[in-house]
Amino acid sequence: MFSKILIANRGEIAVRILRACREMGINTVAVYSEVDRDALHVSLADEGYCIGPPAAADSYLNQSAILTVAAAAGAEAIHPGYGLLSENAEFADLCRQCGIAFIGPAPEVIAKMGDKEEAKRTMQGACVPVIPGCGLVADLEEAEIRALEIGYPLLVKARAGGGGRGIRLVKTGGELKGAFLSASEEARSAFGDGGVYLEKYLDHVKHIEVQLLCDNFGNVVCLGERECSLQRKNQKLLEESPSPAICGDMRERLTEASVKAARAVGYTGAGTVEFLVDGEGAFYFMEMNTRLQVEHPVTEMVTGIDIVKWQIRIASGLPLDFTQSDVSLRGHSIECRINAENPAAGFRPGGGRVSLLHVPGGPWVRFDTALYQDYMVPPYYDSMIGKLIVHAGTRQEALRKMRAALCELTIEGVDCNRDFQLELLQSDAFQSGNYTTGFIKSGGLND
Amino acid sequence: MFSKILIANRGEIAVRILRACREMGINTVAVYSEVDRDALHVSLADEGYCIGPPAAADSYLNQSAILTVAAAAGAEAIHPGYGLLSENAEFADLCRQCGIAFIGPAPEVIAKMGDKEEAKRTMQGACVPVIPGCGLVADLEEAEIRALEIGYPLLVKARAGGGGRGIRLVKTGGELKGAFLSASEEARSAFGDGGVYLEKYLDHVKHIEVQLLCDNFGNVVCLGERECSLQRKNQKLLEESPSPAICGDMRERLTEASVKAARAVGYTGAGTVEFLVDGEGAFYFMEMNTRLQVEHPVTEMVTGIDIVKWQIRIASGLPLDFTQSDVSLRGHSIECRINAENPAAGFRPGGGRVSLLHVPGGPWVRFDTALYQDYMVPPYYDSMIGKLIVHAGTRQEALRKMRAALCELTIEGVDCNRDFQLELLQSDAFQSGNYTTGFIKSGGLND
Repeated sequence: MFSKILIANRGEIAVRILRACREMGINTVAVYSEVDRDALHVSLADEGYCIGPPAAADSYLNQSAILTVAAAAGAEAIHPGYGLLSENAEFADLCRQCGIAFIGPAPEVIAKMGDKEEAKRTMQGACVPVIPGCGLVADLEEAEIRALEIGYPLLVKARAGGGGRGIRLVKTGGELKGAFLSASEEARSAFGDGGVYLEKYLDHVKHIEVQLLCDNFGNVVCLGERECSLQRKNQKLLEESPSPAICGDMRERLTEASVKAARAVGYTGAGTVEFLVDGEGAFYFMEMNTRLQVEHPVTEMVTGIDIVKWQIRIASGLPLDFTQSDVSLRGHSIECRINAENPAAGFRPGGGRVSLLHVPGGPWVRFDTALYQDYMVPPYYDSMIGKLIVHAGTRQEALRKMRAALCELTIEGVDCNRDFQLELLQSDAFQSGNYTTGFIKSGGLND
Repeated sequence: MFSKILIANRGEIAVRILRACREMGINTVAVYSEVDRDALHVSLADEGYCIGPPAAADSYLNQSAILTVAAAAGAEAIHPGYGLLSENAEFADLCRQCGIAFIGPAPEVIAKMGDKEEAKRTMQGACVPVIPGCGLVADLEEAEIRALEIGYPLLVKARAGGGGRGIRLVKTGGELKGAFLSASEEARSAFGDGGVYLEKYLDHVKHIEVQLLCDNFGNVVCLGERECSLQRKNQKLLEESPSPAICGDMRERLTEASVKAARAVGYTGAGTVEFLVDGEGAFYFMEMNTRLQVEHPVTEMVTGIDIVKWQIRIASGLPLDFTQSDVSLRGHSIECRINAENPAAGFRPGGGRVSLLHVPGGPWVRFDTALYQDYMVPPYYDSMIGKLIVHAGTRQEALRKMRAALCELTIEGVDCNRDFQLELLQSDAFQSGNYTTGFIKSGGLND
């Protein structure tokens, strides 16, 4: 087992990883930007080193600064958390070159899954269902033939698209020509590449993801699914496990597909396979996240398995000491993301000094955070300042527990989305469990 | 279900009960002494009423003041917590007379189990093993005969004894005469009653207790045992579940005896049967606590069952919705009591202002407390200011988790026993699980 780990992250996830290390008897090295000197992750670590100015690009994304600290401090491994360098294949490769273990899969696996086109092809090869569609279409004529095969509605997507550009929704055949031409033209002018392909448009779908743990000895274990359909502008807001939409043999089928996906790329560590699931129970591979997810706690609660500790054990070369048949789901867990933002002002993110903090507690209430009273929330980073997680015997009881815990949570001095989360909880769509990814956008709640 | 409950307690347990009520959608009424105006349980309750001066006898034990508030506020039930009025049969009876539900067993049951002599007789009648001994002995001659039957070492105990007076340890027959006479004389001068009886002295025993839930329909369910042998001056310091000493069919036998005990008195609500267990696995009924225990969280963690919510449901007339076969123990839980006291100064209790508070968190770490930053700990009440509880897959992992959590816990401005708890955790006796009730006293640790 490692004797010292550097945590290349900040905020609640750095604290989460630090605690796992402390429980495992592993010494910890924190890195921090100039504005994070007083951050909780720094005071909880055994050692801390400043790695640059506030902007993440100059500090938490500064690969050489981080590797220099790791080498100087004698860290044997680096945990990247989520975001930042966690899915950066180049960084994972640099770690390997420096003889430092990167806590995550191999750089080649990160790279392969990071290329969305290649990931999709790999999954098709492994018989994992992907969203129906076709490769690049040469011209409008071919597009019309492929569109008939795929069926409407569909998306025209630029190969080089991104940030919502080069993408068009086509509801009927009459709209195809205009969409094809404008998507291609937009991509050409924006990215210098007018190549487009077609993909079935899935409406009223759920975002359901499957958590995996894979060791270096070919053992792959699935820890159930997470329902992550409550999103605002593609940002998850509230997650739960198990998904209220899973019935029949669906969990077995999702598990089987996820295990295939992991085996197809020789995956190691903790990873998540994301699917879109339609109302008929058909599901389609979306992408694989080759890192710890923000919402991992709901899986921990229902399985009783500490995912961060297993990431560390696997990276140090230990085999999983349990098999799929040892995994059972107990009760129901919900997580609400608490963001420093003002829902009444277009969800404008903001910082400020936490003048009063009261954290709910009691049985099966967990608040993962790096906040403390009088802490100054800096404006430079992700607006998520905490994750409120509850666990109960049933979904209904978990819902009541979350409502009570949200009501008790008090953060003064910083705007946050607590009341918006309470509204979400109270909505009919959430209560019924029938919500899909478009819920918030579709006016289910004022956005 | 009740729509409003008065919580006749303060501190962490009042907060614990309040949270259960909030999750159940029940309105809450807090009562408080003049020194507790700014207490957390007051700010979390829907309504709060001052019931008297700081001394508990004038406030939290003021039965008529509490009942007056309950009636005026329209509370349908009173939860007494632990300590204070929780085992006061007279108060439970007054509640009944006022048409207010007392959340606990019937006054007759409280009275019967509160009389230690009668409780012992009742248990003997129900074939529950009690500590071997005899009833009152008429004179020294009878004492000598009974002593030979019971065997040495034994205790001479005054019927009217208490607070350690009127009790003598007798190791051999030669010591009996002196012990008999002095115990009898001491009890006569202290209590006006020189009657004594003999009881087998059990050395190197463990204190193991069994948690029960009993509804009003004859259903009795056992939630496993708690190991509570780590005590200082008969005050529990650290508890765990399951007990590391339980092996073979012992849990079944303890369960069977506890269920017999509960049925023998028509018990309802949550209750705990305490046993002394010797090194050969023989166990003896000690007493039954007819209330919520301080250490109930360790049972909640391993069973997944919320004991406080079930107390409330049972008192409102609901049946248990699960049976013994639904109860399974998962993992291992440890609780450390955090007391405002100074171990370096003879464990002198103290108060003061909490100038800095940092509470450990993360998965399966729970800190039940009514503390907050800048809170003034008053000197009038029990010195326990928090309970740190962890839950993990194995005892070894729970131990490491507790050590990390204790190290992270920061309470400045008030002396506390955190470091003493860390020492306890590190001791060989605790690590091995072979500790008995005499461990701290016997110099296992400096006391």
